[in-house]
Amino acid sequence: MKILVLNCGSSSVKYRLFDDDPAGASSSSAAASSPAAGSAASSSSPAAGASSSPAAGPGASSPAAAGSGAAVTLAKGLIERIGEAGGDAADHTEALQRVMESVDISGLGAVGHRVVHGGSRFGSATVIDDDMVATIEDLVPLAPLHNPPALSGIAVARKLLPDVPQVAVFDTAFHQTIPPDGVTYAIDAALAERWQIRRYGFHGTSHAYVARRTAALLDLPADRANVITLHLGNGASACAVEGGRSVATSMGMSPQSGLVMGTRSGDIDPTVIFHLHRVAGLPIEEIETSLTRHAGLQGLSGANDMREVERRYTEGDPAATLAFDVYCRRLKEYVGTYLAVLGRVDAVTFTAGIGENSPLVREAALKGLAPLGIEIDTARNEAKDRSERIISPDGARVKVCVIPTDEELEIAEQAKAALAAAT
Amino acid sequence: MKILVLNCGSSSVKYRLFDDDPAGASSSSAAASSPAAGSAASSSSPAAGASSSPAAGPGASSPAAAGSGAAVTLAKGLIERIGEAGGDAADHTEALQRVMESVDISGLGAVGHRVVHGGSRFGSATVIDDDMVATIEDLVPLAPLHNPPALSGIAVARKLLPDVPQVAVFDTAFHQTIPPDGVTYAIDAALAERWQIRRYGFHGTSHAYVARRTAALLDLPADRANVITLHLGNGASACAVEGGRSVATSMGMSPQSGLVMGTRSGDIDPTVIFHLHRVAGLPIEEIETSLTRHAGLQGLSGANDMREVERRYTEGDPAATLAFDVYCRRLKEYVGTYLAVLGRVDAVTFTAGIGENSPLVREAALKGLAPLGIEIDTARNEAKDRSERIISPDGARVKVCVIPTDEELEIAEQAKAALAAAT
Repeated sequence: MKILVLNCGSSSVKYRLFDDDPAGASSSSAAASSPAAGSAASSSSPAAGASSSPAAGPGASSPAAAGSGAAVTLAKGLIERIGEAGGDAADHTEALQRVMESVDISGLGAVGHRVVHGGSRFGSATVIDDDMVATIEDLVPLAPLHNPPALSGIAVARKLLPDVPQVAVFDTAFHQTIPPDGVTYAIDAALAERWQIRRYGFHGTSHAYVARRTAALLDLPADRANVITLHLGNGASACAVEGGRSVATSMGMSPQSGLVMGTRSGDIDPTVIFHLHRVAGLPIEEIETSLTRHAGLQGLSGANDMREVERRYTEGDPAATLAFDVYCRRLKEYVGTYLAVLGRVDAVTFTAGIGENSPLVREAALKGLAPLGIEIDTARNEAKDRSERIISPDGARVKVCVIPTDEELEIAEQAKAALAAAT
Repeated sequence: MKILVLNCGSSSVKYRLFDDDPAGASSSSAAASSPAAGSAASSSSPAAGASSSPAAGPGASSPAAAGSGAAVTLAKGLIERIGEAGGDAADHTEALQRVMESVDISGLGAVGHRVVHGGSRFGSATVIDDDMVATIEDLVPLAPLHNPPALSGIAVARKLLPDVPQVAVFDTAFHQTIPPDGVTYAIDAALAERWQIRRYGFHGTSHAYVARRTAALLDLPADRANVITLHLGNGASACAVEGGRSVATSMGMSPQSGLVMGTRSGDIDPTVIFHLHRVAGLPIEEIETSLTRHAGLQGLSGANDMREVERRYTEGDPAATLAFDVYCRRLKEYVGTYLAVLGRVDAVTFTAGIGENSPLVREAALKGLAPLGIEIDTARNEAKDRSERIISPDGARVKVCVIPTDEELEIAEQAKAALAAAT
């Protein structure tokens, strides 16, 4: 079945067309075969800290193998600067029209939409109907930046492809298995209930995918592997996965809390906000902007890209050194937190741009944890290798792994599973 | 030497008069001997979650042994509801006059003042002079509720006892040894510098005392013992102590972050504040009040006293059960966090009202940590025992201890040490 995955941001649409049964379709193997719609090859970038990938524009397609699954990528691309002067499209309608023109959608079996926020309502990918769209609209106050473009994409795709089933795949859904004591903030219960304040967690498709791949790599049954997953991109989150189910994650009500990120603070004392308002006299809106856009690596070092921070750190720059140290200490602390949540841990897995590509971060984050059974083999850590791999020494009590994430493949697979469950 | 310890709150003054060399003074042993100024005996309450102790009013004194130190308590008491109708005193001047009348201050060698916030300036107890008072005044914006009453107490005590050296002992000082990566928030560095935003940590006298007593109990040199201390009173904080030095603590810029407390939220996603302001339309001041006075156990269960929460929890009340579970999960998470910070840990020590008196909390907080070497012996945990004690099984890798805290004794000892260092 062919599945089109759409990830609609406020000014971009990222897309990827999968064939998850290439033997029965036009492609004959995962690695070779020509794309249906030939064009320049593109590649998504695992660049550490980069906020957007340098993927080719509309029309690009490539026969790249879809990670480690059986699915084949028939085409992928990125439509950027939607609505801007000189951008790729005037609006989401035009953007999606360009997607449909640039890929071969004949025989399309499903469209999988990435939706950031599913609130408390969606514990798995869900086939889209009018009621469901209304529910996602109700969640806009919880994700004011992220849900509206996804809704635009869903509306346009339903109009352009009225006969193709559409599925919403939520960043939050994987974390719906966290028990109540892990999602409840210790605040006024009536306020929390009224305003839907709780931990939701994000990056769920990545944590789910990476935990499953880790179990496979270690030859463990997925439902018995306990894995701490560290998704370190421009956004970053940690997750404790117990037998395939999320039981703790570092992002909370929003993607603002937890680990240090490119431009986001992660955890802070809430009093920082009150103090900046009361003593420094800053308007609340300005404080929010500062904590989301001028904080994190950016706020401490002036650079939001970990590659730049590392370059300056190795040159001895004090601000970059502090940024690097704060970033890695927070990671180490969350590894400890989730060791306690899980009790027994089989693996700690790094993924996403920084997690996959920075031996320095991996080493610093786990330094000193040998008494807890967590160690890194230096040569394995530093080897140039893009495959799914173990970087702990042989015989280590807790394996340390690097797994390239593939959120789009996971969305395609969850979309297919949701369709199968619905019929 | 006789040392008077003063803890001045906005509407109360707690005092305790020590003689740290009883052999050379009127008292002849730590356990017996009559108080100099006879009156009804009083006792400070280790009541779990209680915000004020039921100690006797002015004039009370008792020969209680001063914890495990050599010092003897000659007198102690509490002056309450200062400035209120029917209160014990009209203002701090009158309150301290009553203290001086009710205890025998002949031969007084020092006054030790508890000061909550010492900012980045004070890494140890410091003899008070005019410059120092000015510095504490500069810190009022960081501790608007706590530093002003301490300043009142210092001013009045200096006036009433002009010839007695006075020493400020800070809740923050012990945490000045936390390295930069543990005190720096990942926010705009210029804002942080300008507005003194960093982690300070609190309860330092308690964590210092309890870590030192833990080392003694385990017969380890204090400078080589790694201890996780859990101070669980109405306020609550965790601390990682490495060889007698604080290297991490859960309270931050203010006493608002970290563990769940009686009425304070502890850690939350900062977006909770922005959301309550933007979507719920609450004024910032109201949000701050809610998070500090109507959150924590109170916010989740309606009761800020852990004894009440536990009673309802054992009866199966759902709100109390959730409050208890959230409280204990947060504790467990911080134990894990500090395991990672310390690497090797000799002991986890519980102290303060809840820590000393709740076997239920201790058990739940450490449940499931056996794979990390942390276990509790049920009979030892549940024994009615007020002494310093080990509650882990014999041979456990990490000892679990209960140590009654004694912040006033620690203040007296630090005041004496500061005087010795200054002369």
